[in-house]
Amino acid sequence: MTRFANRNNDELRPLSIEPGCVKNAAGSCFIKFGDTHVLCSATVEDKIPPFLRNTGRGWITAEYGMLPCASTERTEREAVKGRQSGRTQEIQRLIGRALRASVDLTLLGERQIKIDCDVIQADGGTRTASISGGFVALAQAVLSLLKRRKMNKNPIVRQVSAISCGVIEGHALLDLDYAEDSNAEVDANFVMDEHLNVIEIQATAEKQPFSRQTFDSLLTLAEKGAKEVADAQRVLFQ
Amino acid sequence: MTRFANRNNDELRPLSIEPGCVKNAAGSCFIKFGDTHVLCSATVEDKIPPFLRNTGRGWITAEYGMLPCASTERTEREAVKGRQSGRTQEIQRLIGRALRASVDLTLLGERQIKIDCDVIQADGGTRTASISGGFVALAQAVLSLLKRRKMNKNPIVRQVSAISCGVIEGHALLDLDYAEDSNAEVDANFVMDEHLNVIEIQATAEKQPFSRQTFDSLLTLAEKGAKEVADAQRVLFQ
Amino acid sequence: MTRFANRNNDELRPLSIEPGCVKNAAGSCFIKFGDTHVLCSATVEDKIPPFLRNTGRGWITAEYGMLPCASTERTEREAVKGRQSGRTQEIQRLIGRALRASVDLTLLGERQIKIDCDVIQADGGTRTASISGGFVALAQAVLSLLKRRKMNKNPIVRQVSAISCGVIEGHALLDLDYAEDSNAEVDANFVMDEHLNVIEIQATAEKQPFSRQTFDSLLTLAEKGAKEVADAQRVLFQ
Amino acid sequence: MTRFANRNNDELRPLSIEPGCVKNAAGSCFIKFGDTHVLCSATVEDKIPPFLRNTGRGWITAEYGMLPCASTERTEREAVKGRQSGRTQEIQRLIGRALRASVDLTLLGERQIKIDCDVIQADGGTRTASISGGFVALAQAVLSLLKRRKMNKNPIVRQVSAISCGVIEGHALLDLDYAEDSNAEVDANFVMDEHLNVIEIQATAEKQPFSRQTFDSLLTLAEKGAKEVADAQRVLFQ
Amino acid sequence: MTRFANRNNDELRPLSIEPGCVKNAAGSCFIKFGDTHVLCSATVEDKIPPFLRNTGRGWITAEYGMLPCASTERTEREAVKGRQSGRTQEIQRLIGRALRASVDLTLLGERQIKIDCDVIQADGGTRTASISGGFVALAQAVLSLLKRRKMNKNPIVRQVSAISCGVIEGHALLDLDYAEDSNAEVDANFVMDEHLNVIEIQATAEKQPFSRQTFDSLLTLAEKGAKEVADAQRVLFQ
Amino acid sequence: MTRFANRNNDELRPLSIEPGCVKNAAGSCFIKFGDTHVLCSATVEDKIPPFLRNTGRGWITAEYGMLPCASTERTEREAVKGRQSGRTQEIQRLIGRALRASVDLTLLGERQIKIDCDVIQADGGTRTASISGGFVALAQAVLSLLKRRKMNKNPIVRQVSAISCGVIEGHALLDLDYAEDSNAEVDANFVMDEHLNVIEIQATAEKQPFSRQTFDSLLTLAEKGAKEVADAQRVLFQ
Repeated sequence: MTRFANRNNDELRPLSIEPGCVKNAAGSCFIKFGDTHVLCSATVEDKIPPFLRNTGRGWITAEYGMLPCASTERTEREAVKGRQSGRTQEIQRLIGRALRASVDLTLLGERQIKIDCDVIQADGGTRTASISGGFVALAQAVLSLLKRRKMNKNPIVRQVSAISCGVIEGHALLDLDYAEDSNAEVDANFVMDEHLNVIEIQATAEKQPFSRQTFDSLLTLAEKGAKEVADAQRVLFQ
Repeated sequence: MTRFANRNNDELRPLSIEPGCVKNAAGSCFIKFGDTHVLCSATVEDKIPPFLRNTGRGWITAEYGMLPCASTERTEREAVKGRQSGRTQEIQRLIGRALRASVDLTLLGERQIKIDCDVIQADGGTRTASISGGFVALAQAVLSLLKRRKMNKNPIVRQVSAISCGVIEGHALLDLDYAEDSNAEVDANFVMDEHLNVIEIQATAEKQPFSRQTFDSLLTLAEKGAKEVADAQRVLFQ
Repeated sequence: MTRFANRNNDELRPLSIEPGCVKNAAGSCFIKFGDTHVLCSATVEDKIPPFLRNTGRGWITAEYGMLPCASTERTEREAVKGRQSGRTQEIQRLIGRALRASVDLTLLGERQIKIDCDVIQADGGTRTASISGGFVALAQAVLSLLKRRKMNKNPIVRQVSAISCGVIEGHALLDLDYAEDSNAEVDANFVMDEHLNVIEIQATAEKQPFSRQTFDSLLTLAEKGAKEVADAQRVLFQ
Repeated sequence: MTRFANRNNDELRPLSIEPGCVKNAAGSCFIKFGDTHVLCSATVEDKIPPFLRNTGRGWITAEYGMLPCASTERTEREAVKGRQSGRTQEIQRLIGRALRASVDLTLLGERQIKIDCDVIQADGGTRTASISGGFVALAQAVLSLLKRRKMNKNPIVRQVSAISCGVIEGHALLDLDYAEDSNAEVDANFVMDEHLNVIEIQATAEKQPFSRQTFDSLLTLAEKGAKEVADAQRVLFQ
Repeated sequence: MTRFANRNNDELRPLSIEPGCVKNAAGSCFIKFGDTHVLCSATVEDKIPPFLRNTGRGWITAEYGMLPCASTERTEREAVKGRQSGRTQEIQRLIGRALRASVDLTLLGERQIKIDCDVIQADGGTRTASISGGFVALAQAVLSLLKRRKMNKNPIVRQVSAISCGVIEGHALLDLDYAEDSNAEVDANFVMDEHLNVIEIQATAEKQPFSRQTFDSLLTLAEKGAKEVADAQRVLFQ
Repeated sequence: MTRFANRNNDELRPLSIEPGCVKNAAGSCFIKFGDTHVLCSATVEDKIPPFLRNTGRGWITAEYGMLPCASTERTEREAVKGRQSGRTQEIQRLIGRALRASVDLTLLGERQIKIDCDVIQADGGTRTASISGGFVALAQAVLSLLKRRKMNKNPIVRQVSAISCGVIEGHALLDLDYAEDSNAEVDANFVMDEHLNVIEIQATAEKQPFSRQTFDSLLTLAEKGAKEVADAQRVLFQ
């Protein structure tokens, strides 16, 4: 089995992260995993969810969208359909949960940082790209708050990066593109910190239930991928 | 650390499954894991989703709901709010995906079986109870189709059962109740077949990222729990 | 004309009321008229409707729902359709109005009691069963408030019970089941207090307009039925 | 107790019906009961509800609306709120049900007549005025179909008229205006045919449950009122 | 080319404005341009939009609706569809913007005047009729506030009137009716003050792009029409 | 008065059009007027609006959206609010109407081309940029249909370009940025073809009504701007 562009089974697609690309956002980046392109931006808001009022703690939340022409077949605009799909809600809940793991919400204080992840072009792995890029936008927004002395202590306690893996024809592969994802027997997403501890695992048998051994091989691949994404994130802040 | 009713760390809550409880449904059961009570019922429909028309294949889908008074605090009725929450959609997508793994959709033929999972009382683990009970309702509906000769060959290719696990104060625990779930450091749901191969894993760090070793101990617990649920399901069909 | 199970024309279906069945509710009961089963529960809320703020008066309101598999043909989930049907709204407005008649809203004080009526199985007469069961849940919630000294004086001023009647092939019948209801020439619902004074009448000609004499015979039947329901309610509070 | 303009207890407000007032409708009238003014119009459609397809039978349905400035306090526009209120749906279901009683749906054939009732000014009794005026619009539309030979036999089998009654300070009154309605102890609406047989009764205790005797006195008043409305309708078609 | 009723190309349809027609509104009028009939009413509210709070300034806003039977083909009720169409929103935004030009919002003070424009019968030009009639309702409401000393100084700084023009078969025509509008090559709406200065222009090529000269001829016609409407408005306030 | 970057009153902001930027679309471009950046893409669909079925004619329609972080203040996502705002609908109706003017719908045949205009960054003039860029995407899609012989004759009959103008402190200015737009006394948008005939004019007095002379000076500026935009479009197709 040969992957597109002769990619190795444990090789990421070309990864680039262009920080600060959105003029009006507190933090932002344009992240690309091959032909998957996501614009991530962060907005700092004074308003927090009702259940956090007067707790001294803050919140991180995320919203996810896809431009109608991002995918091979045009997808109908959710603003026209009048609601976000179950898939969209599932993804944005995942992004928010993953990014909250990077922050000490008490140090953040009573403010909310909202991360917008908008897919400009989709070729598989948009949710993991959103998490990895979302962390960069979030970190930029926090650094800007520190620089402007709106905050005294950095609330970011760890990096968050994410990557997808899967099994095709019995082979474990890192960072599936859309064509691979559509044919995968197992599809898994991993969110990790820079020490490769796990923040979230979602693994689904698409065709056949899979063994514990198969899962282990995916987790090993994910550790390699997450490390490379974390390295690419870290270089932006040095 | 002592669990409610002196339950062992690897012990399920009292489990009961009452099949055939809904007079008008093709298949149904009332499943209880301790104080978590879910009514599962199956409806066979001739209408299939548009993308399956003229493929000869069928579909399994699920809907999930919670009575307003099921939980400690009354939850607002989704029919009144005018939409299903992101949590509800995420859960019913999971149930449907899990149950589809039990069926050969080509043998099912061009029909859809819809599984309704309605939580009458909630005390943690409603999504895994819904999957485990949903399988019983689905199997009953299929058996009824076979008996009435609407189908020649049984399309059910494996059992599907599900269980939650978690970590509290460093201890891995099986089948969390609501009080435990609210304090868990890690929260994980596992869907498996009767051979303990994996259909779906969802694991989330609620407080701290967790190690590969921790995850392994949860998976081992899940295998024990899933086996017991599968045994309880199987006895109904003998 | 013979009724199912040789029931007499002026005979209720087997009636049972199981109080206190919902662990988390302030008051609850599971009421059955034959195969019509409704779960009724009461929640006490501090929030009252805007038009009652600072009046010292409280409010009783109701919500009604039907599980998708409750009826012969599966009904679509209202949370999925995105709105409550006109029928649902009409029924829950009726339940709320009927139950408000049982309470002195000034003695209730600035609180709202919300009655949830969820039909688990439907075989005709779900709205009258909801009112009769809703009264039990409401009374339980009030007794609990009195016991916990949240209230000094019992605001319940009368019992409320309800029953349906109808005309089939010229015969006036009490407590129609679904098969009867579908063929009725006249369909009527009566809400009464324990002295058989009227709280609400809704009578509809389904096929032919009906005479004053016909209506009188239905009202006489309703008095018999409402008395029996009121007796069954009363026994729970003695 | 003196009524506005020295009206007798069994006296209608000044009633006028101006037929044919809407240029584009198949049938229409502008009906006034005192300061309650409703524009009723009828549209004939070839499309029928799905459950009637290929049955040879037709349908009558109704929609009800109120201009924002019709009532004393401006009411928010339902198109802005994004949904019809429970009250609106309850009323339009009543109007449709009442008017269907006037027609042999098999003679009507596979077509639907939709009756729009729009309240231009509201002073109590808008639902009964809508029914009484809706019948005129419906009858006009049917006559036009007969005249244009779209139909061979008149499907109208009876007149439908409606009137409200109520009890204030113990007195039974006919045709309540808004001020009376707001203070009524009992509020009742009656729909009758020209022989004073009953099509629908809705009677509600607003303050105290009422006796069978009280109800009887309201029914007697309603017979007088319905007869006068029916006479006013009939004169338009002679 | 001959217009209906031998109207000249620069001639308005018969125009009438009946002020004060809605009993419950602060200001109102029923305006007719030929067979286009619009009911306009004004409501004074203490509530202002959030962005104006504590600015001392007020606001004018408008809502537009059309009765289902107003047009040749019945239009579906927006309250039933669950939302206002893009056309409706575009029109009511235009009406609000146009009428705000007539008022010094600081003199108005922190209150909002809402103008409801409901089309009873539609024959072209409903948006311009709504603006012209809306101004009369607004002015009445303001005069009433002055008379009741809720305001010291008249905030109305200019009249606002509006008219449509168009090109058919190369001829520039004033005040198109529906038949003309449907065939127009150019369709234009003009809002002006009493000195014929421009408040809003919307001109659209329906078939062919048009020249600057054509536009100039429409503007000249519009000046004539707007002057006549302004004269008809002014006579009501003398 | 000095404009940003010393721009002359009749000078466009730096304009660039990058065609073919969206991999999956039939036609696309990324258009920039200074800091206003819009992604335009075209999708060809076989489905046409119901009113065009069996007419042999096609349709051009447009949808408009703005990323949440495009503007200075984050705007709420319309998919979250559950509906497109009146402003969005007004803009997308304008874009569609303007682009339809460029095409002979009969030559287009029974197909629809949908133009998506998504604002990545907003600094004034997003609707005119959308029209100018939308034309490029549309023309690309049409050329591709011709090249693939899905069509025999080019249905594009003219170019469409658009530009905004305004008056600030009495000066007529071309191509307003956001800061200028917010302070303009008059705000006008012009859509023209390559011969500078007019397709649409929308001119609004934001502070004071304006004279015919003022409007003329804006129209003269618009002719200069539209010509430059048309030249920039044309160079892409040579």
